[in-house]
Amino acid sequence: MFDHHATFQRAQAACASRECWSPYPEMPRLYPDAETAAPRGEAAFQAMLGKPFALDLPGVTGWVGEEVSPYRQAPLGITYPQADPQALFAAAKAALPGWAAADIDTRLMLLMEGLDRLYARLFTLVPAVMHTAGQSYNMAYAGSGVNALDRGIEALVHAEQAMRSVTPRAEWTRRFGRDEIRLDKTYRLIPRGVAVCFTCASFATWNAWPSMLASLATGNAVIVKPHPASVLPMAITVQVFRDLLAEQGFDPNLVTLCMDTVADPLGKVLIKHPDCAIVDFTGSARFGQWVEANAHPAIAFTETSGCNTVVLAGAEDLDAAVRALATTMSLFSAQMCTSPQNVYLPPSVDTPDGPVPRDVVAAKLADAIAALTQDPRKAAMILASVQAPQTLGLIQWVRDQAKGRVLLDSRAYDHPDFPNARTATPLLVQVGKEDRDLYAEERFGPIGFVIDCDSSEDALHQATEDARLNGGITGFLYARDEGFITRAEAAYARAGAQLTINLTGAMPLNFAAAYSDYHVTGLNGAGNATLTSLAFVASRFAVTQSRRPTRTHD
Amino acid sequence: MFDHHATFQRAQAACASRECWSPYPEMPRLYPDAETAAPRGEAAFQAMLGKPFALDLPGVTGWVGEEVSPYRQAPLGITYPQADPQALFAAAKAALPGWAAADIDTRLMLLMEGLDRLYARLFTLVPAVMHTAGQSYNMAYAGSGVNALDRGIEALVHAEQAMRSVTPRAEWTRRFGRDEIRLDKTYRLIPRGVAVCFTCASFATWNAWPSMLASLATGNAVIVKPHPASVLPMAITVQVFRDLLAEQGFDPNLVTLCMDTVADPLGKVLIKHPDCAIVDFTGSARFGQWVEANAHPAIAFTETSGCNTVVLAGAEDLDAAVRALATTMSLFSAQMCTSPQNVYLPPSVDTPDGPVPRDVVAAKLADAIAALTQDPRKAAMILASVQAPQTLGLIQWVRDQAKGRVLLDSRAYDHPDFPNARTATPLLVQVGKEDRDLYAEERFGPIGFVIDCDSSEDALHQATEDARLNGGITGFLYARDEGFITRAEAAYARAGAQLTINLTGAMPLNFAAAYSDYHVTGLNGAGNATLTSLAFVASRFAVTQSRRPTRTHD
Repeated sequence: MFDHHATFQRAQAACASRECWSPYPEMPRLYPDAETAAPRGEAAFQAMLGKPFALDLPGVTGWVGEEVSPYRQAPLGITYPQADPQALFAAAKAALPGWAAADIDTRLMLLMEGLDRLYARLFTLVPAVMHTAGQSYNMAYAGSGVNALDRGIEALVHAEQAMRSVTPRAEWTRRFGRDEIRLDKTYRLIPRGVAVCFTCASFATWNAWPSMLASLATGNAVIVKPHPASVLPMAITVQVFRDLLAEQGFDPNLVTLCMDTVADPLGKVLIKHPDCAIVDFTGSARFGQWVEANAHPAIAFTETSGCNTVVLAGAEDLDAAVRALATTMSLFSAQMCTSPQNVYLPPSVDTPDGPVPRDVVAAKLADAIAALTQDPRKAAMILASVQAPQTLGLIQWVRDQAKGRVLLDSRAYDHPDFPNARTATPLLVQVGKEDRDLYAEERFGPIGFVIDCDSSEDALHQATEDARLNGGITGFLYARDEGFITRAEAAYARAGAQLTINLTGAMPLNFAAAYSDYHVTGLNGAGNATLTSLAFVASRFAVTQSRRPTRTHD
Repeated sequence: MFDHHATFQRAQAACASRECWSPYPEMPRLYPDAETAAPRGEAAFQAMLGKPFALDLPGVTGWVGEEVSPYRQAPLGITYPQADPQALFAAAKAALPGWAAADIDTRLMLLMEGLDRLYARLFTLVPAVMHTAGQSYNMAYAGSGVNALDRGIEALVHAEQAMRSVTPRAEWTRRFGRDEIRLDKTYRLIPRGVAVCFTCASFATWNAWPSMLASLATGNAVIVKPHPASVLPMAITVQVFRDLLAEQGFDPNLVTLCMDTVADPLGKVLIKHPDCAIVDFTGSARFGQWVEANAHPAIAFTETSGCNTVVLAGAEDLDAAVRALATTMSLFSAQMCTSPQNVYLPPSVDTPDGPVPRDVVAAKLADAIAALTQDPRKAAMILASVQAPQTLGLIQWVRDQAKGRVLLDSRAYDHPDFPNARTATPLLVQVGKEDRDLYAEERFGPIGFVIDCDSSEDALHQATEDARLNGGITGFLYARDEGFITRAEAAYARAGAQLTINLTGAMPLNFAAAYSDYHVTGLNGAGNATLTSLAFVASRFAVTQSRRPTRTHD
């Protein structure tokens, strides 16, 4: 029995106040014994390359692995056991009763320990994320590392809150006619069953850890179905939890891995399996919509795509606003579900020095992005690499469509550490608001649009309508008029996108803080995995009861 | 602004402890000024008959009404405005912003007031329920009246808990490099939109009131779609809430009524309307399954049918157990979703006087039902009337199928107050466990099965498998062996049915107490409307946020 109660209580307080807090230091240099831990972790990663991954699973039928490092554009050469889905479900079901019978505190503390053990392997997870997702070192450490761990704790806090709202026992007495009926009632929390957690290629852990922990905390088993291009971070996760569960006397088959390949996907097989009770899905809008419409009787939590919008109506410091936008539109080559894509501009932008014409603002944005990405070392830190080769094709397609309206062209840049890295600087094109075919959906990767609008109100209307109709996760607003800001807050709330207003400075505009920032809302097509609200956890278990006359001991 | 805080706080305590409590006296004679209130309410009901119902709705295209009193087998003659669904959705959407903007406390206290106003009209609702659902006076008062009001309050308590778990504001400060970023964050609870509440013919208010209040408390609008055979209780409900909303300056179109007819049902039109965001459904398993599979993108809360099981393995007082079973199997002619239907019997039943052979037990049960229903006055109180004429056909069909194995035949009984009442005493047939075509689904109405099993363990296995596979809401166990009871508790929990053990005496076995007993679990096909857990409320609203740098006022 692990004792992480002090940390857990602090996390409960943070979830209530939604202030800034984390038990994990946010900088690699603050990691305990960073100087030895970092090279040791990196060496462990290197030792995994070109070999079968050490993972024991039920029903293994073969070994597969097709990961290619975006930095090296060479296969990692790691193979993973491919297990028969039927065997995974059977093993998970067999594992459930013991886990469901464990008390809430035992489960929560074991899962807190699991997060600590992932933290202990963070310097192995960092290169694993880099060489699958293509993230920078810092993003792999912070975003896919400590921030994702925090989201896991946050899921545990909410799971605890939902479970504790059901008393385990009650005494109930009422008169019926001449009889006084006294009943002892027992309430049980019954996990829904086997959860399937689909993880994406570019940011697996951040969605996976809270989803997995929400399911596990409420007593379910989890089959992890990683994107074939980004397996290693999830394989390490599964390994850590399986080892921990076995060590603590639980069945390790509560957490398993289901490998598939791009050529032979197994997603629909898993979702349509009669024992699939919960689906957590992060991935494409197309498959995500299929999941949402077909998961029943399983419940589904989804995050698909973000058509993320920026309304730039005015700014106290236009250059600072443009710099912040340029940085965030470049960050990880805009391969985050929260990356801004569409910048809606009125004919002129309101500043303390008077209105600035749209074309000047658009040029400033293009210049700011160009400046950020000119120096390869700086570009490497911000842009990192491009996860999927298809993204380069998409850039070319948008470039072709937008001919004559390219504000800033995309090009490969030379990564200072990885000469073979797949890279692309952002493409920025200017379009009319009628060009919805081009901009009114997520164009995943370093692709941005400047959209000419009739006025600030029109820009706000277009942006929030696109978010509402096409699934916006985040929205960004720069404006000087407080009345306009108030209207924008209401419009973005109705559209279901999380809004950041007038932010400049060193914080990435799309930074989502665990314990504080909510994620997708369920109000538009971007999905419903709010990470973490009560709605994200409360239906992962059911309440059953038994009642019987109170037995008197006399 | 209404002040029902003291009652609400008491309800919160009851939901936490799940002890017995209600703000509403449970007996008609304890109603304030019952002697004048009762005849006044009854007169108001009589005055409604044969007339258009006074309800103003948007988009009215005609007047319809096809209710027939099960007691008089004559039309009520009440017509209701039939509104165009498109107009109802449009009006509901237009009404949403003002309601969503009201603070939580304002909404909760207004809805508490609404329940009090329904209570004020209880003696009109009682005959309305009797002459649509066919319930007895006492059941209409208690089950469809005060108990349903309590379930409404319970929904408000849980809605409040889910909403309060999100702080409205936060201050968040973190260092990014050299910058200290200070953000003010505002969190908004955004209702999902327009809810459609389908109510059933036999027990409308008990599911409708908590569903409606869960949606309204979280800021949504509600279109009530009553079963065409049981409109009046819901029309009164809609009238009460519309009047109250308008009186308090809110748009009455937050609560509307959508009439349809048996010949021209509108259910699918409502569910497939693009603005349908929430579905609460009580009704048939067949349409319920369609709802669950097709409601997306709306979320669905369902209660369909109950294949409710009894395992009678042993009893300290066999006659008392059999009497309790006979009463509950007869109550409201078994037209409750919680009515026991299938009695699984081992070859002999364990009693302090030794084993009692199955056929003796089966005969005792038939005799006990016969005894209860012999005296018409007693029969009327227990059996009441049969809601739907089709139920008589179903009784005939089962009788035909079971020929030679009828333990107790069904017959009409003469209702002492209503000579034309549609009545039927219970049909009890004995079947083998292989006769699943006959008993392994809900046979709605006064139809019971005694099922021959190989042993007590076999009886438990059959019963819980039938509950799991065919949607059990309730389960009932009589047994003397504590080890067997423990196994049965676990098996029923896995099957997802709420279990009552060894209960005898004056309390109906299937009585479900507000603030204390949970309803369907979502673990089997009977639905997921737990009435009320956090899962029943938490996804009825979304959380959106806006954040901006803290403005210093200096």
